[in-house]
Amino acid sequence: MEEAEIARLLNEVKKGEMSIDDAIIRLKEAPYEDMGFAKLDTHRGLRQGVAEVVYGQGKTKDQILRIAKKLLETGQKTVLITRMSKEAAEFFEENKGDIESFTYDEISRIGIAGIQPDAENGVGRIVVATGGTSDMPVAEEAAKTAEVLGNKVVRLYDVGVAGIHRLLDKKSLDEIMRANVIVAIAGMEGALASVIGGLADCPVIAVPTSVGYGASFNGLAALLSMLNSCASGVSVVNIDNGFGAGYLASMINKK
Amino acid sequence: MEEAEIARLLNEVKKGEMSIDDAIIRLKEAPYEDMGFAKLDTHRGLRQGVAEVVYGQGKTKDQILRIAKKLLETGQKTVLITRMSKEAAEFFEENKGDIESFTYDEISRIGIAGIQPDAENGVGRIVVATGGTSDMPVAEEAAKTAEVLGNKVVRLYDVGVAGIHRLLDKKSLDEIMRANVIVAIAGMEGALASVIGGLADCPVIAVPTSVGYGASFNGLAALLSMLNSCASGVSVVNIDNGFGAGYLASMINKK
Amino acid sequence: MEEAEIARLLNEVKKGEMSIDDAIIRLKEAPYEDMGFAKLDTHRGLRQGVAEVVYGQGKTKDQILRIAKKLLETGQKTVLITRMSKEAAEFFEENKGDIESFTYDEISRIGIAGIQPDAENGVGRIVVATGGTSDMPVAEEAAKTAEVLGNKVVRLYDVGVAGIHRLLDKKSLDEIMRANVIVAIAGMEGALASVIGGLADCPVIAVPTSVGYGASFNGLAALLSMLNSCASGVSVVNIDNGFGAGYLASMINKK
Amino acid sequence: MEEAEIARLLNEVKKGEMSIDDAIIRLKEAPYEDMGFAKLDTHRGLRQGVAEVVYGQGKTKDQILRIAKKLLETGQKTVLITRMSKEAAEFFEENKGDIESFTYDEISRIGIAGIQPDAENGVGRIVVATGGTSDMPVAEEAAKTAEVLGNKVVRLYDVGVAGIHRLLDKKSLDEIMRANVIVAIAGMEGALASVIGGLADCPVIAVPTSVGYGASFNGLAALLSMLNSCASGVSVVNIDNGFGAGYLASMINKK
Amino acid sequence: MEEAEIARLLNEVKKGEMSIDDAIIRLKEAPYEDMGFAKLDTHRGLRQGVAEVVYGQGKTKDQILRIAKKLLETGQKTVLITRMSKEAAEFFEENKGDIESFTYDEISRIGIAGIQPDAENGVGRIVVATGGTSDMPVAEEAAKTAEVLGNKVVRLYDVGVAGIHRLLDKKSLDEIMRANVIVAIAGMEGALASVIGGLADCPVIAVPTSVGYGASFNGLAALLSMLNSCASGVSVVNIDNGFGAGYLASMINKK
Amino acid sequence: MEEAEIARLLNEVKKGEMSIDDAIIRLKEAPYEDMGFAKLDTHRGLRQGVAEVVYGQGKTKDQILRIAKKLLETGQKTVLITRMSKEAAEFFEENKGDIESFTYDEISRIGIAGIQPDAENGVGRIVVATGGTSDMPVAEEAAKTAEVLGNKVVRLYDVGVAGIHRLLDKKSLDEIMRANVIVAIAGMEGALASVIGGLADCPVIAVPTSVGYGASFNGLAALLSMLNSCASGVSVVNIDNGFGAGYLASMINKK
Amino acid sequence: MEEAEIARLLNEVKKGEMSIDDAIIRLKEAPYEDMGFAKLDTHRGLRQGVAEVVYGQGKTKDQILRIAKKLLETGQKTVLITRMSKEAAEFFEENKGDIESFTYDEISRIGIAGIQPDAENGVGRIVVATGGTSDMPVAEEAAKTAEVLGNKVVRLYDVGVAGIHRLLDKKSLDEIMRANVIVAIAGMEGALASVIGGLADCPVIAVPTSVGYGASFNGLAALLSMLNSCASGVSVVNIDNGFGAGYLASMINKK
Amino acid sequence: MEEAEIARLLNEVKKGEMSIDDAIIRLKEAPYEDMGFAKLDTHRGLRQGVAEVVYGQGKTKDQILRIAKKLLETGQKTVLITRMSKEAAEFFEENKGDIESFTYDEISRIGIAGIQPDAENGVGRIVVATGGTSDMPVAEEAAKTAEVLGNKVVRLYDVGVAGIHRLLDKKSLDEIMRANVIVAIAGMEGALASVIGGLADCPVIAVPTSVGYGASFNGLAALLSMLNSCASGVSVVNIDNGFGAGYLASMINKK
Repeated sequence: MEEAEIARLLNEVKKGEMSIDDAIIRLKEAPYEDMGFAKLDTHRGLRQGVAEVVYGQGKTKDQILRIAKKLLETGQKTVLITRMSKEAAEFFEENKGDIESFTYDEISRIGIAGIQPDAENGVGRIVVATGGTSDMPVAEEAAKTAEVLGNKVVRLYDVGVAGIHRLLDKKSLDEIMRANVIVAIAGMEGALASVIGGLADCPVIAVPTSVGYGASFNGLAALLSMLNSCASGVSVVNIDNGFGAGYLASMINKK
Repeated sequence: MEEAEIARLLNEVKKGEMSIDDAIIRLKEAPYEDMGFAKLDTHRGLRQGVAEVVYGQGKTKDQILRIAKKLLETGQKTVLITRMSKEAAEFFEENKGDIESFTYDEISRIGIAGIQPDAENGVGRIVVATGGTSDMPVAEEAAKTAEVLGNKVVRLYDVGVAGIHRLLDKKSLDEIMRANVIVAIAGMEGALASVIGGLADCPVIAVPTSVGYGASFNGLAALLSMLNSCASGVSVVNIDNGFGAGYLASMINKK
Repeated sequence: MEEAEIARLLNEVKKGEMSIDDAIIRLKEAPYEDMGFAKLDTHRGLRQGVAEVVYGQGKTKDQILRIAKKLLETGQKTVLITRMSKEAAEFFEENKGDIESFTYDEISRIGIAGIQPDAENGVGRIVVATGGTSDMPVAEEAAKTAEVLGNKVVRLYDVGVAGIHRLLDKKSLDEIMRANVIVAIAGMEGALASVIGGLADCPVIAVPTSVGYGASFNGLAALLSMLNSCASGVSVVNIDNGFGAGYLASMINKK
Repeated sequence: MEEAEIARLLNEVKKGEMSIDDAIIRLKEAPYEDMGFAKLDTHRGLRQGVAEVVYGQGKTKDQILRIAKKLLETGQKTVLITRMSKEAAEFFEENKGDIESFTYDEISRIGIAGIQPDAENGVGRIVVATGGTSDMPVAEEAAKTAEVLGNKVVRLYDVGVAGIHRLLDKKSLDEIMRANVIVAIAGMEGALASVIGGLADCPVIAVPTSVGYGASFNGLAALLSMLNSCASGVSVVNIDNGFGAGYLASMINKK
Repeated sequence: MEEAEIARLLNEVKKGEMSIDDAIIRLKEAPYEDMGFAKLDTHRGLRQGVAEVVYGQGKTKDQILRIAKKLLETGQKTVLITRMSKEAAEFFEENKGDIESFTYDEISRIGIAGIQPDAENGVGRIVVATGGTSDMPVAEEAAKTAEVLGNKVVRLYDVGVAGIHRLLDKKSLDEIMRANVIVAIAGMEGALASVIGGLADCPVIAVPTSVGYGASFNGLAALLSMLNSCASGVSVVNIDNGFGAGYLASMINKK
Repeated sequence: MEEAEIARLLNEVKKGEMSIDDAIIRLKEAPYEDMGFAKLDTHRGLRQGVAEVVYGQGKTKDQILRIAKKLLETGQKTVLITRMSKEAAEFFEENKGDIESFTYDEISRIGIAGIQPDAENGVGRIVVATGGTSDMPVAEEAAKTAEVLGNKVVRLYDVGVAGIHRLLDKKSLDEIMRANVIVAIAGMEGALASVIGGLADCPVIAVPTSVGYGASFNGLAALLSMLNSCASGVSVVNIDNGFGAGYLASMINKK
Repeated sequence: MEEAEIARLLNEVKKGEMSIDDAIIRLKEAPYEDMGFAKLDTHRGLRQGVAEVVYGQGKTKDQILRIAKKLLETGQKTVLITRMSKEAAEFFEENKGDIESFTYDEISRIGIAGIQPDAENGVGRIVVATGGTSDMPVAEEAAKTAEVLGNKVVRLYDVGVAGIHRLLDKKSLDEIMRANVIVAIAGMEGALASVIGGLADCPVIAVPTSVGYGASFNGLAALLSMLNSCASGVSVVNIDNGFGAGYLASMINKK
Repeated sequence: MEEAEIARLLNEVKKGEMSIDDAIIRLKEAPYEDMGFAKLDTHRGLRQGVAEVVYGQGKTKDQILRIAKKLLETGQKTVLITRMSKEAAEFFEENKGDIESFTYDEISRIGIAGIQPDAENGVGRIVVATGGTSDMPVAEEAAKTAEVLGNKVVRLYDVGVAGIHRLLDKKSLDEIMRANVIVAIAGMEGALASVIGGLADCPVIAVPTSVGYGASFNGLAALLSMLNSCASGVSVVNIDNGFGAGYLASMINKK
């Protein structure tokens, strides 16, 4: 029930055009969301006007295109499409019509339609660090998500603990010390999150990846390792969930 | 190597009392931390003066007492002792000597020595919510940790999803909407984190608990459930890790 | 041993044409089912005349066709084929001969041969609810199964807990309140079953799906979550077992 | 917001004592449950007047007593206490004051306060079957729960599949055929649920128990077995969850 | 229905004292086991007169005594009680009344009431081999079970693969070569079953034990190892199931 | 060292052509297998002349052909090839040269080269039973293996416990009662092994299959179920290990 | 900071061209690795000049080629490429330019560029043993890695415990006794490591392989088995990690 | 068969006192170990005279005492008793008779009887490092085992990765660089092994411990983490297996 509707109803009550009993009934029947529990929508509302996300996996290329178009038409400035196949991206490009701009990144499988993020001028500082180069698809999903949401992202790739000096050189260490929030991404033994958690004094979001083989059990080893991190300030998201980490990092960074 | 030492060494080089080669060797051998990588210590440094944590599990009552005393003597204002047995607390009380104050909470098994937290005047707003009353020990560990670290904590206990109206009444909803960060604690199926994650627009730290039986597998069910949360902004810490959640919540709240 | 046979045997004993010892031996050897334990067959008997189910997976398209034809010839009015490939469906369509009607639904991979269900005039009210759109194949398997068995089915799709207002709007809530039985289908964290279980006062059949990635472990997370549901009245079937849920829902609805 | 309150508000609007804008604000702020979403409470309401359940585990004997007293004072006729220790039961007995009646069953650890169930005159027919005698505590939890809720319960204990003739003798078979719903309880390999599911033509609620050793992994083997039941009409609840099965059985039986 | 009863019934039919219709009804109603499906009972029948087994775990000392007495009174010569506590054994000894003989073995926790097995004169040759001395309780359960059932048992203890020469010395090898069936019992890595399976040309029953720590996961490691044995002729029973192995070995040995 | 060689050596010692010291050295150096530890080879020796097995998986079609040819040339009468691809079988047929006969069964993926088994005249009685028709590939692997090894095999397919009457009809029951050994093959919940184990009085070899989906976890559910069988006389082999079961059944049957 | 730079800085201090304070600051800011913590690089340094390893998995054929070229240009004599696809190898061969030599082994998927290892003249003695022929790809990865690193490697393939005489013949036993370190590679039940560990008196590196099916769970059974080895001196690397075992064996052998 | 016996036999053959056929038979029957496969015993032999190990767990205090006495009487200089309870140690002390010396360490639960290790003068350098102080019991088991076997042991305790500077200070780093072999012991996330593996250029033996809670699953998290270590040169032993690590470290150190 929109505010206008409530107003009209109250008006009718005031004028005596509707009995109080009828009004009570209608108010009680009003669907939950229409009651204007704005708070429920704030969350969404705040995001709107900035960027909306489409989870590409399991959607046809046509569905993705139509959803994105509709979002842009209804005021969304940027639409982020995650887990988008190359085919879907090519189809999008060919049929984008008057969508201002569309970019696609093969590694992270992320498509961005509408106004492109201004990566240079993002706010705050989110560090996205990976243990190895194979963690890059997840890392780029996190980084690009954060950039689309308006954050400044610093990438520290391939700083895994097997060569701890890479992580401890002045440049890397400086970035870690200056970060507002860090996304630590690693497969195999996932030790990166603990080491960074021990160095940093900001929240660390750990993302286990399915990189590895054998007893990595598709990311389970890294997941358990990260959940058991002996460093304070570390929390964990699902295996390979780059988007979730980027989104949460943005939430914390923008506080 | 302290700054003074480096200064003396450079001085000797300047005066010609030490050869350049010898200086190079001594500098290269200087222990890592003495090199003044202050950033490594910042993290610790920043915490000092506020509160230090002692993990009580596996320590004797005597060890706990001595560690706490030493920390308080060296400038720590408050010492938080987690997983402290009742016996250790009684022993502490009896032998606290001139420690200003000591309180112990049986439910959360948390002891606080030194200046007690001023729960009324904490900053920000951390909501600690639980699915059931049996999650309270973990919840209080989180809440008290956050309070000791100077945060304002709001408790929403027993608002589990099996009676969703408890979570959706105006008071609860208001608290959720006004929070800077929420700690969602639940055992069994752990659905609370997802529902709160869907309602709130702030970071949600999910804490699975070992509450439950049978196929809860000591918290595994809740853990997996929370890691798979379809709500954005949710991350997870170890099963029963109330302290970790409270600490991280404080980090985010104080940003 | 048919009743007639027993009668004949007893007759022969009466007439002295068969010794008592011989009769004992023959009676002891009589095959179990022939003893007329009709109850063993009741179960099947009751279903006959309504619909019979063919599990398509692992059967050749030719086998499926022949089984269905035989069932229809022997009095079955409708045959439901689950997990039927598109190829098998096309083959069926081309070779259906004088089978009155055949329909196939690609999403649920369900084929229906013979008299089509009259979805409009089903009895009772089974609500089939899903957490997300990706759960639709399982949901449609459940819904179509229930419809073929003569039930009225209401679909509430994409009402997952991450956007709890979708589930709590008046329309959805009304359907949940009026249901005789609810099938709650969800992947990832599977929290839908608990929330619906807390709202509804009818039996809820929870179906975990393999939708998700990483720590969903192909539906294990949702399965454990649902088994630990803190709401009363919830029980669980196998991962992705839409047919089983639809069948059981029909059993309960028709009581 | 109670109906009376809404009425008063509308009255004030009608009289011009409250502006429409203020009324809108107050209505929007009204706490969810006060809006009279009676349906949310129906569920609970319907149960009230019959019996309320207290989960005894993790509650002190004093807490249990006080909760039960309050429930009985506020109109509850019977209170069922599950997982109640012997100590709590003795304490209850000694301090029950003017509670009319209290009984306690050591095997199922169930206490019943207030009006005792009239097991003889329950409605319908719920069969509770177990594989072995060690499954009895879970079975009695289910049976007593169902009896308290007003159902007629038939016990078929120790009819496990290793001696299939016990299940197939005429008496057992008759009970299975005449049941409205069956609770099949078994540990170890949990095959009972499948066999009963194959015989019966009513819903079967399978309860895996933690009875067994070695590769039973505390009920996991039985749980997986039951989830994979090849018989239609079988669904599963948590390991050792006798109460849940009894409650659900009652729901189905009373339909 | 006993044979005598069937005979009487047929007799009555013959004499015309009972109508054929009534006879049919009575025969159909006769409980399954009474129908004389001797085959169902053969199994049991064959065992009777030799030995009957009582699973002691979870039974009170009084229950065990009463069951054993009843079995002996009804013609059983020997009763084997497995997983019997020392307390139960002492109680049995004190209250055995006119039971001829009772022995108890603390290691295997096996009690034997009635005629004791004549271990010297058992038939065939069952070899019971263990990897270490800690596997002895399980081994003795197997060995004593086999002896009670009338088999000749040879013990080869502590011949684990870490010291392969112990298994390969002439004496051990001879026993392995001459065995009719071998029970190979081992915890930790459970390799014994494979090695013996490779040497022997008779069936090998592998029993994983819960001996070990850490990654033995209470016998899981040995269990998986034995299931994957690359040697032909090896099958596996449950962890620590010495009785099951001894019983099966007897079955095979006596063929 | 062949017997002939030892004889020659001893001869040389006898004749004084070799010193005793030299003889000692040569004897000690003789490779283990050459020492004629016939017992080690008995096992193999007994199999020779009857049939030898080639595990086809992971071998090229050419390797399989060459191995089989060599075995047949060196006196083997029959060669059984398990897990043989259709391609390998076609290649074999085309290039079999003067191999007397070759047959291939697509379902079990078994090829038999040389003298074909005389299935009609096998000895003893091995019953191979399956829960469903999808278990047939594993069942045929077991059955054909046993037939090649000279056993009489009776097939009882699709007698799963969901329709217990199929297993309990006179014909099936008779076969179970007359068997020397039974191979019980089932996927999903694997209850067949327990039910048959409860009926039969001969050894039952349980084979879990990977048939199923969801919580069957590729055969894990059936495996655990079978390991926990409450029936005596049941042992288990690896998931889908039809060959192993057939081989072991033959060993027991021929005792 | 290179030594030369430190020297220059100290020189400037000495000459008074730089103040001591400035020097302190510059020294403190010097990036970690530039400080010449040679020890950190020793590890790497020692390897350089001998061989460098490129992990081929997940790298494009072009990336592999370019990395290898660069390593060879910068002084590396040999480059070992692990998990290299046949396509990448063919591409490498065609485009190797003036790389002196390139060999590729299809089984182990190892490519070696530059100076080829002189397998004949390696130092020490590393024995690489496998349970079956299917373990060969992992074994060759280990063996070739060790050879490239300059070790003498002895291969003992297909000596699995199911035919223990193969392992115990004089030749095999001799090799085991003379080894400096043994790599024991096995899938399925992984018993080889324990048996070899019991025979040998040198370190044994156990490598579980994913060879097997069913309850081998892709190498988990062998992994657990090896971790529980009752033989002293055995340690374990990841499933299928031939490279890691070969590298570690070289480390130990060359001590 | 001793050499003397073989000589006698050959002598008899030479003299014609024994036929060649008889000699062949006797030689074939000679027990394996008597054939003088000295190498089988070398392993043991080499250890003798240094120290022998008794695994205390599961042995009575009396058994331990008797075994130790016998070993010392038969020439063993030192006996190491692992997992020895305090009770067993007190009993040992009281009853040691003329055993020269006995020491017991409560933390590691290690008892040493006979000549005590000369920890100061051990050879080589084994570094034993732990992540936290709770890992000390395992660490001391490793360290003391290595010392008893004659090695020089350096302890680096509480250098976990959450405070990486503790590991990277000059003193720790120096010890790591100078070690011949390192034992890295850690619970929780077990990242220590990877970080040390990345720093060191000697073999690293990783020991996961059961220290931790929740998702550490009694050491499983650390175990998987260590198996997936991205650092070369790391291998893993069983959870809490301090003895195994110390023994293997000694083997490698003494090469």
